[in-house]
Amino acid sequence: MNILETAGYLRNLDNVLLLTHVRPDGDTIGSASALCQALRDLGKTAHLLYNPEITATYVPYAAPYWGSDGFTPEHVISVDIADLNLLPDNAKQYADRIELAIDHHPSHSYFARHACVDTAAAAAGEIVYEIIHALTSVTPAIALPLYVAISTDTGCFVYSNTTARTHRIAAALLEQVDVSAVNKALFRTKSKTRLAMESRMVADMELYDEGRVVVMQIPLSLRQEMHATEADIEELSSLAALVEGTDCGITLRELRPGTVKISVRSGPRVDACAVCAKLGGGGHRAAAGATVDGSMADVKAAVLRAVTEVTEA
Amino acid sequence: MNILETAGYLRNLDNVLLLTHVRPDGDTIGSASALCQALRDLGKTAHLLYNPEITATYVPYAAPYWGSDGFTPEHVISVDIADLNLLPDNAKQYADRIELAIDHHPSHSYFARHACVDTAAAAAGEIVYEIIHALTSVTPAIALPLYVAISTDTGCFVYSNTTARTHRIAAALLEQVDVSAVNKALFRTKSKTRLAMESRMVADMELYDEGRVVVMQIPLSLRQEMHATEADIEELSSLAALVEGTDCGITLRELRPGTVKISVRSGPRVDACAVCAKLGGGGHRAAAGATVDGSMADVKAAVLRAVTEVTEA
Repeated sequence: MNILETAGYLRNLDNVLLLTHVRPDGDTIGSASALCQALRDLGKTAHLLYNPEITATYVPYAAPYWGSDGFTPEHVISVDIADLNLLPDNAKQYADRIELAIDHHPSHSYFARHACVDTAAAAAGEIVYEIIHALTSVTPAIALPLYVAISTDTGCFVYSNTTARTHRIAAALLEQVDVSAVNKALFRTKSKTRLAMESRMVADMELYDEGRVVVMQIPLSLRQEMHATEADIEELSSLAALVEGTDCGITLRELRPGTVKISVRSGPRVDACAVCAKLGGGGHRAAAGATVDGSMADVKAAVLRAVTEVTEA
Repeated sequence: MNILETAGYLRNLDNVLLLTHVRPDGDTIGSASALCQALRDLGKTAHLLYNPEITATYVPYAAPYWGSDGFTPEHVISVDIADLNLLPDNAKQYADRIELAIDHHPSHSYFARHACVDTAAAAAGEIVYEIIHALTSVTPAIALPLYVAISTDTGCFVYSNTTARTHRIAAALLEQVDVSAVNKALFRTKSKTRLAMESRMVADMELYDEGRVVVMQIPLSLRQEMHATEADIEELSSLAALVEGTDCGITLRELRPGTVKISVRSGPRVDACAVCAKLGGGGHRAAAGATVDGSMADVKAAVLRAVTEVTEA
C-alpha cells in the first residue's frame, strides 16, 4: 500500500497494538511512538507492546505508549520490522495476525496481510511521517519521536541513506520542536566507560584484505571488565567503519557465551546485506547484521569468509 | 545589507577577490568557493585569495578558485571572517579595502564598508546559499561546497545551531548533488593516527568543577610522537564536549612553544564566547576559540579562571 492507502486504512481502525523489533533502536521506537500518538490524536485507542529489551536511551519516547495488561487489541501493526524472526518473544503471539507492516528494509519478508514498504526511505520514520502528515497534524509530541527515528537511522544525517527527502522532513520536524537536547544526548554524549571501550577496541582492531576490512570485537570479558551497560555499547558498531582506508567495518559482539552479534557497515564495494544474509541475517546494503551461534573466533572466520565470497561474486 | 540587497550589490561588481579566515574551516572555504563559482556563472572574474593554511581536506573545494599572481582585484569581499585579526598574513594588505563582509559570528566587528551578517545562520554557507539563490542557479558545482560549509559548521546537523532553515537548505543542496562521499570523508573517516590521539586524549583528560568541565590537551610532544598531520588534528576539539556529565569541553592545543590555541564547546550554562573573549578570542555561544601566549599549564589555568568568572557572573 502507498502512503495515502495506508493512511486511509489506519483511519478505519481502532484498538491498535504496535509492535517494535528486538534490540529496539531509535527508528522502531520513535516511529511506533509517533504513530501511536497520531492514532490517539484521531481519538483512537492505541498502544505499543512493551519491548523488554528497550534501553534507557529510548525509554522516554516509548513510556507514554506502553499498553496495559487489560488491553485487548483488535488490530496489530508492525513498525520497522523486516521479518517475523525479529519479533520480541512477547510479540510472537501476534505473529500470524499482523495486519499491516510499515518498513523500509530491502530484506522485508512481507509477512503481514498488508505492507507499506519503501526501501528508498532512510528510516521507517520517513514513511510514518508521511502517513501521519496525510492523517493529522504533526504536533511537537509527534515530531520529537519522529526526529529520534530519522536521526538515529541516518547517524544524524551522515549515512549514505540520507536524501533530500530526509532533510525536508527534518526541516518540518524542527519547525515543531527543539531537538538540541536530543542531539546532545543521542550523538554528542559518550560515557567515560564508552570512551574507554572505544579506545580498547581501536587498540585491538584487526585489519584484513590489505587493510580494507577492519574487525573490532566486544567480548563479554571486555564488557564485564569495564562494567559496561547496554547503553555504553549501543551503536558501538559504527566505530569500525570510521577507520581510514577501510570500506568494510565488522563488529563482533559476544551476546552470551556461544552467541555473537555481527554488525557490518560497508562502502559501495561490499554489500553488507549480502554478507549478513549468508549468516542468516539481513538489513541494508551499507549496514546489516546477523546473530550467529559459535565462538568469537569461529564467527569472525565465518564473516570474513562471507565478505570474501560476496566481494568476489 | 539583507540578502536581496547583497545580491543586488554583487550583481554590479566585477573582478572580485574573496578572502577566507586563518586556519580555514569548511565554512569559510566552502562558502567562498560557492560564491566564487556563482560570480563566475554570472560572467564575472572572481577568485579566492590563496590561503596558505588550507588543509588537504578542503583543498579540492578551493583549488579551482585560487587567484593567479597577475590578478588585480577591483573589489574585495570577506567570507565567514568575524574580525580583521582573523585575516591570513597575505590578506592583510586588503584589510582597509574590504567592501563587503558576509558573516554569521555574533562577535562580528563590522570592519567592512558593507556587511551582510546574520547571526541566526548556523553557517556563513546558509547566508551565501540565500544570496546565490537570489542571483543565479544553485548548480551542483555550487551545491557541493555549500554542503561542505553547512555540514562542517553544524557537525553534520548535530550542533545546537542547526535549525529548520539549515535542513531546508540541505534538502535543496541534496537535490543537486550526491554528498555521500563527502559525508564519508568529512565525518565518517578517522586516520589510525587520529584514533590513537583520541585514545590518548581521553586517557589523559582532566575533570574540574565537579566533573562539569573537561580539559583535553594536545601538546606538541604528542603530535610529534604520533607523527600527526594537521588533518589528523582537525576538529579534535569536538572530542572534549562528548564526555558525559560535562557541559564545558576545553581543548588546549600547543601551536608552537609558548602559544596555545584554546577551543571551548559548551552547553547552555557556559557562554563559550564570553570565556574566549576574556582571553582575546571570540566565536559563538556554544563554540568559541582564542589563541593565547603562555605555557600549556598557564593557559589552562587562565581558561579555567575565565570559565569560573563567566559562569559566576
